[in-house]
Amino acid sequence: MSDQKVHKPKAVSGFPEWLPEYRAVELEWMDKIRKVFESYGFCNIETPAVEEIDALLAKGGETEKEIYTLTRLHAEEGDKEARLALHFDLTVPMARYVAQHFGDLTFPFKRYQMQKSWRGERPQKGRYREFYQCDIDVVNIDELPLHFDAELPAVLFEAYQALGIPPVELRISNRKILMGYIAGLGISDPGIVTRTLDKLDKIGAEAVLKMLAEQGIAADIAQKALSFVNIKTFDSGFAEQVQSLGVSSDLMTQGISELKFVIDNLGHLPKGAVVADLGIIRGLDYYTGTVLEARFAEDKTAAKPMPPMAIGGGGRYDDLAGSFIHQKLPGVGLSIGLTRLFGLLMDRGQIPAGRKAPTDVLVVLPEEARRAEAAQVAQTLRAKGLNVELFHSDSKIKRQLAYAEKKGIPYVWFPSFKDGQPHEVKNMLNGEQAAAEAATWQPAKA
Amino acid sequence: MSDQKVHKPKAVSGFPEWLPEYRAVELEWMDKIRKVFESYGFCNIETPAVEEIDALLAKGGETEKEIYTLTRLHAEEGDKEARLALHFDLTVPMARYVAQHFGDLTFPFKRYQMQKSWRGERPQKGRYREFYQCDIDVVNIDELPLHFDAELPAVLFEAYQALGIPPVELRISNRKILMGYIAGLGISDPGIVTRTLDKLDKIGAEAVLKMLAEQGIAADIAQKALSFVNIKTFDSGFAEQVQSLGVSSDLMTQGISELKFVIDNLGHLPKGAVVADLGIIRGLDYYTGTVLEARFAEDKTAAKPMPPMAIGGGGRYDDLAGSFIHQKLPGVGLSIGLTRLFGLLMDRGQIPAGRKAPTDVLVVLPEEARRAEAAQVAQTLRAKGLNVELFHSDSKIKRQLAYAEKKGIPYVWFPSFKDGQPHEVKNMLNGEQAAAEAATWQPAKA
Repeated sequence: MSDQKVHKPKAVSGFPEWLPEYRAVELEWMDKIRKVFESYGFCNIETPAVEEIDALLAKGGETEKEIYTLTRLHAEEGDKEARLALHFDLTVPMARYVAQHFGDLTFPFKRYQMQKSWRGERPQKGRYREFYQCDIDVVNIDELPLHFDAELPAVLFEAYQALGIPPVELRISNRKILMGYIAGLGISDPGIVTRTLDKLDKIGAEAVLKMLAEQGIAADIAQKALSFVNIKTFDSGFAEQVQSLGVSSDLMTQGISELKFVIDNLGHLPKGAVVADLGIIRGLDYYTGTVLEARFAEDKTAAKPMPPMAIGGGGRYDDLAGSFIHQKLPGVGLSIGLTRLFGLLMDRGQIPAGRKAPTDVLVVLPEEARRAEAAQVAQTLRAKGLNVELFHSDSKIKRQLAYAEKKGIPYVWFPSFKDGQPHEVKNMLNGEQAAAEAATWQPAKA
Repeated sequence: MSDQKVHKPKAVSGFPEWLPEYRAVELEWMDKIRKVFESYGFCNIETPAVEEIDALLAKGGETEKEIYTLTRLHAEEGDKEARLALHFDLTVPMARYVAQHFGDLTFPFKRYQMQKSWRGERPQKGRYREFYQCDIDVVNIDELPLHFDAELPAVLFEAYQALGIPPVELRISNRKILMGYIAGLGISDPGIVTRTLDKLDKIGAEAVLKMLAEQGIAADIAQKALSFVNIKTFDSGFAEQVQSLGVSSDLMTQGISELKFVIDNLGHLPKGAVVADLGIIRGLDYYTGTVLEARFAEDKTAAKPMPPMAIGGGGRYDDLAGSFIHQKLPGVGLSIGLTRLFGLLMDRGQIPAGRKAPTDVLVVLPEEARRAEAAQVAQTLRAKGLNVELFHSDSKIKRQLAYAEKKGIPYVWFPSFKDGQPHEVKNMLNGEQAAAEAATWQPAKA
């Protein structure tokens, strides 16, 4: 035992890590998401965790103050000024990547990216400072067909489904409807009003009306705006409801037609999975058409209903990389907030623990003299694709079995204890034990 | 096109990223390494990129000055002092993890970890500031059987083999032999001498002898030390050579016996894969027994020989987490320098490009009116596990084929152009085209 001073470590707030049996589940989730993304032809890219600060600031916006900059612990003089920082999302790095490698990419460029991002937020429930996001984006030169606005939500939905989590709904709107409507109401500064309306879920209708009044919006206009963001339909019915509000503009008409197209083209998803929700506002400075937010579907019969927070989202942007390249690159992208989703379900005890080790078979070591034989068994089983541990010492069999039990290893293999004795395998789940040969044995199907 | 100012982005030195067709290979490598690690029962963990600076400094050492600390871009006053930093390897985070979750882990704890680390090094060829490492470690309480010192190199070797790279050799020594020998020579400060000897590969014998002389080592002793680090044998023959140098000590005898054990127990690896190399010194402040370095095997017939640099390594340590917990936790760990290895082979043009997209089949869109039918084909093929893109617009067939060609998509599917017409599939590699049904078609085996 060391006699040096001991600093008992504790978790750093906002930087999650999981025990092996839960990391196994997270890894399985990532494999499943990747499989769905690839099944639609998205290629993977990975960008460094680090970008030049200038590149990260090119888009501006709220996130700026949360950026973590890097400095070397013992920086030389003149080297003190941070030039590099951790990315806070995967969209800015992708924009920089597309601009930088423009000539080497094939368009429409369909990429997925599953990486961590970092934000120096004040820690609070459901917010992480380091978190995984799983992004898909399609980017094209000059124009991008609207069909992608309908394809990507289907991909996203399939990915959620693959995880075996409670039902998810995709709430979709189109910024053109909102902006057209607000302009039609004669509101001069749409930014303030939309930001206020965006708070509806959090603060409720009364507080929103009060804020709008303070912002100088007449009561009848405020009421109309509120009616607008309350429109939610499972089909294209939203269009009639919007039109019945008595405001119209070309932009609004275009937005309605785009949203109808998207909703209609998602008709193959299960009933209730897609909602046209004009209350979805999101990323004001960024999106220009389709906007989407994924949430757990409301289940009023649930004992402990899922919270109404976003577990994914995204939308359409007209010009991805204008700050990096003289090319108009419209795109549409969606993102799964993996850590947020996983952490939420962990907190609620809804992630069933996976295995503590990937080991399928523990090979017992009967005595040191039989190590070569035991190692041979292990190697034969591995060659068949099984995950195998050889117990490290010829301890009492009881102790070797206890190790398998504690690690949740489903099979224990007994090599010969005497020359010529047949091998046996014990199924740790049902206790059955039977003779077996390494070359031919197969575990029962899970 | 945007009229804002454009900052054409360029790569940040030391932070590599790859085009999709090479990232596909890197991802495939990571899958293969993971499969080998899991086949020996190692579980995966992932720790945050970020640790408290105090935790990173607990081990001390050379790396300290390369640590990147984090500061929020707009930190509040009093929040300026950096408390967090990026990890520079995966061993310190694992030590902290094991100490923190001690009660929840099963020992011997066998974990693998495949993550990026960061070091603010001066950029130079073969050195990266952000790089992947793939680590396996076994950690136990109080004692760890020597068998793991022989098992881990076998796992490492299998992982390299899985990558299909030029032959790798594992150079193995044991710090006890070196330290015992140096003590036996009567050298009082072994640290300086071993650090000098460690430079042999880089600066050559003459320069080493000169440095040793400057350090006050007598010429005959220096020559002996040099003879020692030049001992290299493919079997246990090293033992006799060491003993013939006429120095002995208990520590040395113990080290020889341990190294013999390890070399003998790796006898099943291909001839030449394992070298007892007493010139392997590594991580002076850290390792206490077995030390290992993986390099490409020398091939004197090669037109462009592989450089003699380390592409992996590790060893045995007596006390992993003494600065974090009052438990003696001996371990043995090895690491593949993935980015270093991948980057080296990239630079040499030895990474064959993978596919630009994972897409197996591009489904042609004959005309907009047939989109539902084409989408149905795509979904049927996906349900069979294929990766499928539906072309986004009913462009000329020639253009749709050109897209498949450019992305390297191996099959193009033609749905009916008229009602009742059979579907056809074109093999883009050999140009063959034949009628096919989505429900039953399978691609040719690769």
